[in-house]
Amino acid sequence: MTVHTFRPTHYWNTLGPHAPVLEIGDGDTVITTTVDAAGRDHTGERVTPGGNPQTGPFYVAGAEPGDMLALHLNRLTPNRERGWSLSGLAPNVVEPGTPLPKPGSHFTDWRMDLEAGVARLWEPQGTLAGLALPLAPMLGCFGVAPWGKQAISTGTSAEHGGNMDYRGFVAGTTVYFPVFEPGALVFVGDGHAVQGDGEILGTGIEISFDVEFTVRVLKGRRSGWPRGENEREIFAVGNARPLDQALQHATTEMLSWLQADYGLSDADAGLLLGHAVRYEIGNVFDPAYTVICKVDKQTLAQLAGQAA
Amino acid sequence: MTVHTFRPTHYWNTLGPHAPVLEIGDGDTVITTTVDAAGRDHTGERVTPGGNPQTGPFYVAGAEPGDMLALHLNRLTPNRERGWSLSGLAPNVVEPGTPLPKPGSHFTDWRMDLEAGVARLWEPQGTLAGLALPLAPMLGCFGVAPWGKQAISTGTSAEHGGNMDYRGFVAGTTVYFPVFEPGALVFVGDGHAVQGDGEILGTGIEISFDVEFTVRVLKGRRSGWPRGENEREIFAVGNARPLDQALQHATTEMLSWLQADYGLSDADAGLLLGHAVRYEIGNVFDPAYTVICKVDKQTLAQLAGQAA
Amino acid sequence: MTVHTFRPTHYWNTLGPHAPVLEIGDGDTVITTTVDAAGRDHTGERVTPGGNPQTGPFYVAGAEPGDMLALHLNRLTPNRERGWSLSGLAPNVVEPGTPLPKPGSHFTDWRMDLEAGVARLWEPQGTLAGLALPLAPMLGCFGVAPWGKQAISTGTSAEHGGNMDYRGFVAGTTVYFPVFEPGALVFVGDGHAVQGDGEILGTGIEISFDVEFTVRVLKGRRSGWPRGENEREIFAVGNARPLDQALQHATTEMLSWLQADYGLSDADAGLLLGHAVRYEIGNVFDPAYTVICKVDKQTLAQLAGQAA
Amino acid sequence: MTVHTFRPTHYWNTLGPHAPVLEIGDGDTVITTTVDAAGRDHTGERVTPGGNPQTGPFYVAGAEPGDMLALHLNRLTPNRERGWSLSGLAPNVVEPGTPLPKPGSHFTDWRMDLEAGVARLWEPQGTLAGLALPLAPMLGCFGVAPWGKQAISTGTSAEHGGNMDYRGFVAGTTVYFPVFEPGALVFVGDGHAVQGDGEILGTGIEISFDVEFTVRVLKGRRSGWPRGENEREIFAVGNARPLDQALQHATTEMLSWLQADYGLSDADAGLLLGHAVRYEIGNVFDPAYTVICKVDKQTLAQLAGQAA
Repeated sequence: MTVHTFRPTHYWNTLGPHAPVLEIGDGDTVITTTVDAAGRDHTGERVTPGGNPQTGPFYVAGAEPGDMLALHLNRLTPNRERGWSLSGLAPNVVEPGTPLPKPGSHFTDWRMDLEAGVARLWEPQGTLAGLALPLAPMLGCFGVAPWGKQAISTGTSAEHGGNMDYRGFVAGTTVYFPVFEPGALVFVGDGHAVQGDGEILGTGIEISFDVEFTVRVLKGRRSGWPRGENEREIFAVGNARPLDQALQHATTEMLSWLQADYGLSDADAGLLLGHAVRYEIGNVFDPAYTVICKVDKQTLAQLAGQAA
Repeated sequence: MTVHTFRPTHYWNTLGPHAPVLEIGDGDTVITTTVDAAGRDHTGERVTPGGNPQTGPFYVAGAEPGDMLALHLNRLTPNRERGWSLSGLAPNVVEPGTPLPKPGSHFTDWRMDLEAGVARLWEPQGTLAGLALPLAPMLGCFGVAPWGKQAISTGTSAEHGGNMDYRGFVAGTTVYFPVFEPGALVFVGDGHAVQGDGEILGTGIEISFDVEFTVRVLKGRRSGWPRGENEREIFAVGNARPLDQALQHATTEMLSWLQADYGLSDADAGLLLGHAVRYEIGNVFDPAYTVICKVDKQTLAQLAGQAA
Repeated sequence: MTVHTFRPTHYWNTLGPHAPVLEIGDGDTVITTTVDAAGRDHTGERVTPGGNPQTGPFYVAGAEPGDMLALHLNRLTPNRERGWSLSGLAPNVVEPGTPLPKPGSHFTDWRMDLEAGVARLWEPQGTLAGLALPLAPMLGCFGVAPWGKQAISTGTSAEHGGNMDYRGFVAGTTVYFPVFEPGALVFVGDGHAVQGDGEILGTGIEISFDVEFTVRVLKGRRSGWPRGENEREIFAVGNARPLDQALQHATTEMLSWLQADYGLSDADAGLLLGHAVRYEIGNVFDPAYTVICKVDKQTLAQLAGQAA
Repeated sequence: MTVHTFRPTHYWNTLGPHAPVLEIGDGDTVITTTVDAAGRDHTGERVTPGGNPQTGPFYVAGAEPGDMLALHLNRLTPNRERGWSLSGLAPNVVEPGTPLPKPGSHFTDWRMDLEAGVARLWEPQGTLAGLALPLAPMLGCFGVAPWGKQAISTGTSAEHGGNMDYRGFVAGTTVYFPVFEPGALVFVGDGHAVQGDGEILGTGIEISFDVEFTVRVLKGRRSGWPRGENEREIFAVGNARPLDQALQHATTEMLSWLQADYGLSDADAGLLLGHAVRYEIGNVFDPAYTVICKVDKQTLAQLAGQAA
């Protein structure tokens, strides 16, 4: 249960079977930092090329293909005052041929007011001058090394995680990844101070983070897709295009989970899901989109054999 | 501002330019009933063929093509004790080839406990015996006559509404429809006592309803798709396949709304949406799927020129 | 086996359970005309509102729900010299955000040279001046009344046919439709002198037609989707969005056909299709897209029990 | 213009920035072999793990990011008598929930009759006993190293090529790839003796090949996606899900090509395409589907300034 403080010196723009920067143990905690999507650190200096550069990979001793890796997000804190977002909507989220809003400038800068817990325009003006968006720091892109010795761009996502941009990946959440490579090879990056559903600008408010996480190896626990849980709910994540298919992956993964861990027959799992499921939309900007399939813990506590 | 009590004697399985059952005025209220998706009324008797039969249409005096019709849902109450749902998941919400849970029987019956505000299995047994799902009565299928003299099945949805199965269509919500036919021709039906997102069983808990709604004609207010609002948020609805396209329609409709009614330039509307949008998934079972694009009123209240 | 000559006096913009214009018998032939997509007849005069207006419906004596209607296209001939097309690509066939070619004018006129069998620009100029596109007259929109008493716009397609825009619907082809209404109710319209795959301009070369077709009622022969055949091949048609789903419908329909009529087990039908299938793309412009699933008759002739 | 004979000793299951096996010059020819999708060579022995193992990569001197690589397929010949295919249809090409044909066995063996130019069942029996499918040897999976230092599985495809399974990749065809890595890094593999459109069994008739190809570096010629040409037509390739998006990429790429090389304005390119485009469907089995956008050379020869 060691706490490692790690200061990155290089970053990756793919999640793949790269040389680990640190070996950590089952139950260990890592305190580290991430640069923003453009490769800028807490000082605002560009220290690596842009494109969601990742800190890591961290080799988790004992994690083998066929296990599951639990990644608990202890703390995600923007570590500088100025964040930025793109200013214009992605053309794929509006009807084809819609003339797209021409933003005043390509980038919009935002000021973090950590005390008030909000982000405001760096240069407030016009109709949006009074905007104060509640800070909700989340990891946009993180995960483990993919299957089949692939190295996959941080611009997309798949079974291994990657650029999922789900607003639920906040501190206090535990995320579960299937392990494809020895040591799992954990990557973290792409912090967002605020983000709307879908990341439909192609960015949230992009900013560098202080990050703390704790890992656990769940031996022999298989999953096909990332999973997660927080105080209120459990969730499964599907990453694919179109949204329909992402939803299919997430739903299928949740069905498996309910059967394996909640004592439900396949028929009861379907019936429960039919009446209690909630979906959320992660990224709808990337080559792969993200859909989340959720069930609240209050409902699960009603199941026979579950502790309330 | 008349209150009409209307007792239906026949029902429609398409939304179309059908002969009105009642003419009502701008501001009037209608108290009526709907049968369940299988055509059964409050006594449980099948009074009309199944397939989301609709009560109506109600002709709203003064509503003309190019106007918008506001339909405020005052009250939606299950009016019998027993509801039913299908028991097995729709094959289109799981990965292709997934062996589907075989339910014990094709239908599952549910008991409404209006006092406790929950639905329970009619015959509680097995792992789900203790399930008590919070009642959240909503209209699954309702709307107005479509464009172009079409008569469209109550099994699907489009610009005119129809079978959207959005959990947000509860009492207290105002829904806005584009008007395509003189009198708008309002239809209501397909009450659900409880429903998971997506209606992934192909049903919620289907039951007959007592319904009360109030109409208002918004002269010359155009919209391309249904819209709505409740205490917390405004929302736009897109109905299409695949989900990606439903999301495009909903997002484009919301962009128009923000520009027309909230004093935002097109660029500012996009920027606001990018950071504040929330999506929900309505129906993912029908020929047309449904996506909802929402913005919360607290955020809108921060805009210059908006009353807090 | 009567030959009826029918001169239309009104047209429909939906396919639905409308009052027949003529009752014809099993085996009868109809000689009639269609206006172009904008409602213009052989003189170029606009005689009805645009939007693929349909001639018909023709009531076929003896056709009942659950039968199949064979429609043999005997002759499709442009009956005036000037046709027209839209000039710019549909935004949904290019990558989102692609700046679309700005055409010189919204419409392009074309001259039919029936002798040479080609269409040329009405006003030849620039790089395209020498273009001589082989005439290949086809019906863009035709079919029967839909299921469930629906009236569906001629701007889209479904199980009943409609706006499929498949280049294979030329003279010499037999098209099979499921019958949903007594008399089937046959509609024909929307002639194209030339069309690229997908109708990606939103039009082919639109022109009025002389049309001759012969009907046959196939009692008790069920199909889920339109089918067809010509000298070289048999084909099944799926109409839906996205293309993936249209392809699923077409493939499933062909599987059923191979089993029912060619003595193949379900496994052999799949194996044959896997090695011999050809797909074509009909409309990719409408609310519903069209995919065609084909098998050539030479391959079918190799099956045991089939006449060579 | 050297001719290299290369005998592979190891294979790759990703296309990525791997160490070259051979450096060749602009204009050089390579004579080599490929194993089948399961890793079996001309003797039928499994020499490497399955999953479309690739021969290569070949480093082409002078090829730099921003160039285009022309790969002319001189010769593709099955080099053993026995090929195999999967026996059952992929569940994603039929309507969700369709009970899938249960094949007699998981694999079907086929005998190459090179003299007669056909493939027959290894053990002819039943209705398919007389089947004689014309041999049409093609490369299923080939291409160059992807952008961004990715290593992408041979089970899918993208801008760099990969597992496209297009029946048009036969001998006599020239394929053009964008160059992302120095030397381009050419991979070839996954020979199919016969294949239906879409590779809807998940395989064609899989077999090892003798392969001969010639490379050319087109300095400074950019493309976004693979292109190709044969005697009759030019074509552009889009690889993505769903099919709609693959079609968008292919169409957009063809538009660029027509403007850059055929003297067409953007408007004229769109107009020409609208009337002359043909689409074909490559793979509909992989994570990325493939659509081909074609224009025939006879039509192009009619353009002003083009040699007939």
